[in-house]
Amino acid sequence: MVKQERAARTRQALVRAAAEVFARDGFVMASLSSISKKAGVSNGALHFHFESKQALARAVADEAAAIVRTLAAPARSGAADPLQRLVDATHALMGRLEHDVVLRAGFELGTGSPRRSDSPDLRGQWQMWVEGVLKDAEREGALAADVSAADACVAVVAATVGFEQLGAQDRTWRSPATLVQFWDLLLPRLASAQTLRALVSGGTPAAAPERT
Amino acid sequence: MVKQERAARTRQALVRAAAEVFARDGFVMASLSSISKKAGVSNGALHFHFESKQALARAVADEAAAIVRTLAAPARSGAADPLQRLVDATHALMGRLEHDVVLRAGFELGTGSPRRSDSPDLRGQWQMWVEGVLKDAEREGALAADVSAADACVAVVAATVGFEQLGAQDRTWRSPATLVQFWDLLLPRLASAQTLRALVSGGTPAAAPERT
Repeated sequence: MVKQERAARTRQALVRAAAEVFARDGFVMASLSSISKKAGVSNGALHFHFESKQALARAVADEAAAIVRTLAAPARSGAADPLQRLVDATHALMGRLEHDVVLRAGFELGTGSPRRSDSPDLRGQWQMWVEGVLKDAEREGALAADVSAADACVAVVAATVGFEQLGAQDRTWRSPATLVQFWDLLLPRLASAQTLRALVSGGTPAAAPERT
Repeated sequence: MVKQERAARTRQALVRAAAEVFARDGFVMASLSSISKKAGVSNGALHFHFESKQALARAVADEAAAIVRTLAAPARSGAADPLQRLVDATHALMGRLEHDVVLRAGFELGTGSPRRSDSPDLRGQWQMWVEGVLKDAEREGALAADVSAADACVAVVAATVGFEQLGAQDRTWRSPATLVQFWDLLLPRLASAQTLRALVSGGTPAAAPERT
């Protein structure tokens, strides 16, 4: 293995180990030595890659932000109806939260008051994406006549942040079954009658890989 | 002032000061000396009332739990429709979160992973109350025919936890206007046609005092 490749792997192992330790102990109590131990590297190697715990937190949050961008990428779901893309993205997000500690730690690092201001704001990023897709739905006439994108955004963003938070203590909250209950309730109110017939509250195959 | 009364006041000042310091610095970083200083009492007085920071956190969480019980008291809204009681309770909860640091700190202490297990679970308490009032609504025929109390509970609990969380960084999320948007969206789906006509998404006067 060439040197550069080995360095990239070590860095990646440190980011993952940091996410696990942050998720278990919280940022404040997490120690650099637990992180290097979990990553199977020396303290020296840790300091070669990251100058501080703050720098590690930043790397975890950046990687989590990249994951959210991938999950919510507009290209991803191609021609699908915007509301279906929204449903799919919530399934993909909850599925990924379930099995990816980096994403969980990234959201966790962004909470608490005051939020660490140098971390990317994952919830803000998610909210902007939801707003965008709901505006697409509004423009395409996929929303019910008496529902605005802004109203729908309030309910969807608040509920998904709730699922993420509640799921940290009880995984049922981010299960596919809970999301289906939510969408079965909400979609008949959000969608125009014509759009509603084609929507699948359990998500379409585009969202499925994240659930494996 | 008799001695007992003075002791009760000191204890109360310490609980409020602890809530303020927990909300500002987080539980882990909060120092007992900042708390006694903010309460205007000596360290000795603090230790007379509370043996540890953990004991202070427990007192904050207990007081927050008592506030939630009061806000959600079934007797409170008397004969009102269960769905109106639910709308009113969400307005009362968000209004109180806005101006009561003890309630905010109580919710905050219950989050994070792992949750401190000896604190009362405020979200669990809120969820049980929401479940109960939605079951009342179901029994009284106030829900739409194709909506179950369980489905409604998922959406309402997740969204209110989301409002609480998002509101910690941006107060707009727990404003009356945001709640009205949410209920205007959700109630036409939740309520039977007959019930819907009487519902006020902005809350009835029973909820108003908490907004002052």
